[in-house]
Amino acid sequence: MLSVVLIGAGNVATHLYKALKKAKDVTVLQWYNRNLKAISPFKNDVNVTNNLDNLKQADIYIIAVSDDAIKALSTQLPFKNKLVVHTSGSVSLHDLDKKHRRGVFYPLQTFTKNADIDFTEVPICIEIENKEDLKTLKELSGALGCRHYRVNSDQRAALHLAAVFVNNFTNQLYRIGHEITESKSVDFNILKPLIKETANKIESLSPYMTQTGPAKRDDKKTIKKHIKALDKDIHKDIYELLTKSIKLTHGKKL
Amino acid sequence: MLSVVLIGAGNVATHLYKALKKAKDVTVLQWYNRNLKAISPFKNDVNVTNNLDNLKQADIYIIAVSDDAIKALSTQLPFKNKLVVHTSGSVSLHDLDKKHRRGVFYPLQTFTKNADIDFTEVPICIEIENKEDLKTLKELSGALGCRHYRVNSDQRAALHLAAVFVNNFTNQLYRIGHEITESKSVDFNILKPLIKETANKIESLSPYMTQTGPAKRDDKKTIKKHIKALDKDIHKDIYELLTKSIKLTHGKKL
Repeated sequence: MLSVVLIGAGNVATHLYKALKKAKDVTVLQWYNRNLKAISPFKNDVNVTNNLDNLKQADIYIIAVSDDAIKALSTQLPFKNKLVVHTSGSVSLHDLDKKHRRGVFYPLQTFTKNADIDFTEVPICIEIENKEDLKTLKELSGALGCRHYRVNSDQRAALHLAAVFVNNFTNQLYRIGHEITESKSVDFNILKPLIKETANKIESLSPYMTQTGPAKRDDKKTIKKHIKALDKDIHKDIYELLTKSIKLTHGKKL
Repeated sequence: MLSVVLIGAGNVATHLYKALKKAKDVTVLQWYNRNLKAISPFKNDVNVTNNLDNLKQADIYIIAVSDDAIKALSTQLPFKNKLVVHTSGSVSLHDLDKKHRRGVFYPLQTFTKNADIDFTEVPICIEIENKEDLKTLKELSGALGCRHYRVNSDQRAALHLAAVFVNNFTNQLYRIGHEITESKSVDFNILKPLIKETANKIESLSPYMTQTGPAKRDDKKTIKKHIKALDKDIHKDIYELLTKSIKLTHGKKL
């Protein structure tokens, strides 16, 4: 049985708490947050505290707070030589105080406050300083039903950067699609099956193989018509730049 | 029972043929293609021809050929006053010869050669010239199990343009994610659950609501680090432009 102390009460911490509570072979001994109000709704299910001096002894301390707060918090922890991990995609393992056995337990997924998530679908990227801690983090990932991937710092940084493209930027393309349809009073819902299928296709084929459309075909007539039809300059710029990117990928003349 | 003659043998035509064959209340009377070889594998299931003069009498003629070929083909059809539709998102209804009762039957989805598709998940955008043909096209869409949407030319053009953003451009962002992970020898599969969840989220929330990440938070430190980490200039350009777009959408200072 692994014992865990969870630190923080943001989206990742809250989703992680719910998943840990459901997991066999894991006990959440305690949940810490600076502001007790955020976690007090859970006080009947778990020991809650806002005092670092009261932290219990556990196998793993999980710091799931905002990137900027990780460093200071790890220094304030009133113990040493314990396994302390953060859950961030972009913060260095070395931001954790070196008095700890340091690690990263990065769930690569997008978490929204009120949207439930199937944690077994969340890949966990593990980074560790001491080899003997790998077993513990693998166990934790396994208890959550997650697939884990051992990565180094460069690889984690690359994943976090790539995630911005496939999640944040993709979502902004959906937003632009929404603006374009709204401007002609068309139902954005018509695009949703296409959005889903676009994501599903790369389950079995590479994004290189699944590319279609005017840029890939070098269909100058349609490209010109589309750019002319866009109202906003920034949408024209995005259309031109991503068209250029597709052409470069597929060996078309610019 | 609706009778259909299908014209063309590309991706859309082939997927449409398979869906029509499965549909109740529809008969595919004939399949025409200029090059008989492409459709001859189906000759035991359907009458195939490469001779326009042999076309049978049907309720609907569906022209599912490349955009550039629609106009000439519709002129070559050796009859008039029949319901003739094309399946293109970007070609005008008026490209069809005016001797026909003209319409558009546009399945808004991405079709890949060897990937099966659930046609009941394909929205059909219908445009018609004569009101009395609406019933026939609604019947056809219903027989395929599809939801249909009646649109005008401007709306269809907007959908086709928006589809480029949410499909072609999104797919290129997946490609860039693939390049970034490969450059650090990380498994691209780690990103696939995130890609799926990004698409799933907008099922119930607007893309405006689901936006997260450094651009939305105006997290200058991470943005700077990411741009520095990108190897290719075009990836830096895309990062900067989409970050700018997100900031504009969410009212951040540029």
